[in-house]
Amino acid sequence: MPNPTACLLVIGNEILSGRTQDINIKFLATRLGELGIPLREVRVIPDVAETIISTVNEVRAAFDHVFTTGGIGPTHDDITAECISAAFGVPWEINDEAFAIMNARYPKGEFNAARQRMATMPRGATLIENPVSAAPGFTIGNVHVMAGVPRIMQAMFECLAPTLAGGEPIVSRAVYAIGLLEGAIAADLEAVQKRHPELDVGSYPFARPTGNGVAIVSKGTDPADAEAATAEVTAIMERLGLTPIQGEPA
Amino acid sequence: MPNPTACLLVIGNEILSGRTQDINIKFLATRLGELGIPLREVRVIPDVAETIISTVNEVRAAFDHVFTTGGIGPTHDDITAECISAAFGVPWEINDEAFAIMNARYPKGEFNAARQRMATMPRGATLIENPVSAAPGFTIGNVHVMAGVPRIMQAMFECLAPTLAGGEPIVSRAVYAIGLLEGAIAADLEAVQKRHPELDVGSYPFARPTGNGVAIVSKGTDPADAEAATAEVTAIMERLGLTPIQGEPA
Repeated sequence: MPNPTACLLVIGNEILSGRTQDINIKFLATRLGELGIPLREVRVIPDVAETIISTVNEVRAAFDHVFTTGGIGPTHDDITAECISAAFGVPWEINDEAFAIMNARYPKGEFNAARQRMATMPRGATLIENPVSAAPGFTIGNVHVMAGVPRIMQAMFECLAPTLAGGEPIVSRAVYAIGLLEGAIAADLEAVQKRHPELDVGSYPFARPTGNGVAIVSKGTDPADAEAATAEVTAIMERLGLTPIQGEPA
Repeated sequence: MPNPTACLLVIGNEILSGRTQDINIKFLATRLGELGIPLREVRVIPDVAETIISTVNEVRAAFDHVFTTGGIGPTHDDITAECISAAFGVPWEINDEAFAIMNARYPKGEFNAARQRMATMPRGATLIENPVSAAPGFTIGNVHVMAGVPRIMQAMFECLAPTLAGGEPIVSRAVYAIGLLEGAIAADLEAVQKRHPELDVGSYPFARPTGNGVAIVSKGTDPADAEAATAEVTAIMERLGLTPIQGEPA
């Protein structure tokens, strides 16, 4: 059975303006690969209702899982939950369970209208626990809505992960060589890719204090296949008079 | 006249697998904002021909400029130029100018077939200079094709930038307060946004060694408008008994 697929929507003007360096993509890409739900596409979109609604509807039809980060706080620019409701054509209303969790968290009188906005969700949503700051995320259909702040998003994801039906984990094996140039190995590498059609064989130049070189990464669901391809790449590097090093460049 | 818009396509399995932390989005978002060509959307897509072709055709119709990073090296997984040719329906062929630049760069006998692939481009493309490693990027129509390696991409972009017709630069003014909670300022902030409809007023919680708090950022093409909104936010923070600090959190 093929692995289920994932798409990530990063919702927020702060990424598109360059104000904030995103680190959610890398975290989710890594964790989803481990769960066997490879990330196939990411879109970064602004806090604009029509864009969020149309994008959610497009990608939830195209991928098995959609994850969103950002736009579920208490301020006027936090419109993700409202837009997800519109995308699913369901009311945006107080979620009693979320309301109770948050009401218990705030001192009397401080659970104001802005904060109650964080307990307002699409009808039919199930909660994603937030062990950091209480206000939950939620799942509706195949769409999982999480916070944008990385440490909150990561905590939410770890609560959500056990509920996701994954596939075979994606494993990767890497070998690199200082002094290798891509142009010197390209033809041989294409032959390796052809001999291992189930793998993705990728070539990644690097520039490090220890020297410049290229890392070759073989990735797929079959560890033995990835190791066989890596052994072939290792032999090619040796034929070029280089010293292959297993694993990621230091 | 409204500002021209930009979309970025990050092409590469290494971002989607979590192997590589992208830093090109932030660089281009920042520089494009300075040029008055705000980045409106980013898509991260895999090295899959059909995906690249259909995405390029979708976004080049929807945005004034499309920038791509990644997939223009010499190896089998570098298929961006070929796919851009297919998207535009033009031949993918040796570009004589690119060939001459690269032929002059390599020692005799080392400008092999794999490296010549980097001089193979859509017919009608104009070159984007690569001051770092010679192999040029290119522009065809409103699509600007650049390397994925950040220092090469950045150098290419600075060669390309003077040729782009920009708009009014996007400026931002920020004020932050340690100890501020979003839920305490949300209602007042929405009123600020309504009084300054031409601006994007955003609220960004942070957790730093110096303390947790919220930064409020007002962004638009009119510096006086952004400063007026920031003055209002500053006054709101003072009414809450906090110490507003201009600029980004330390």
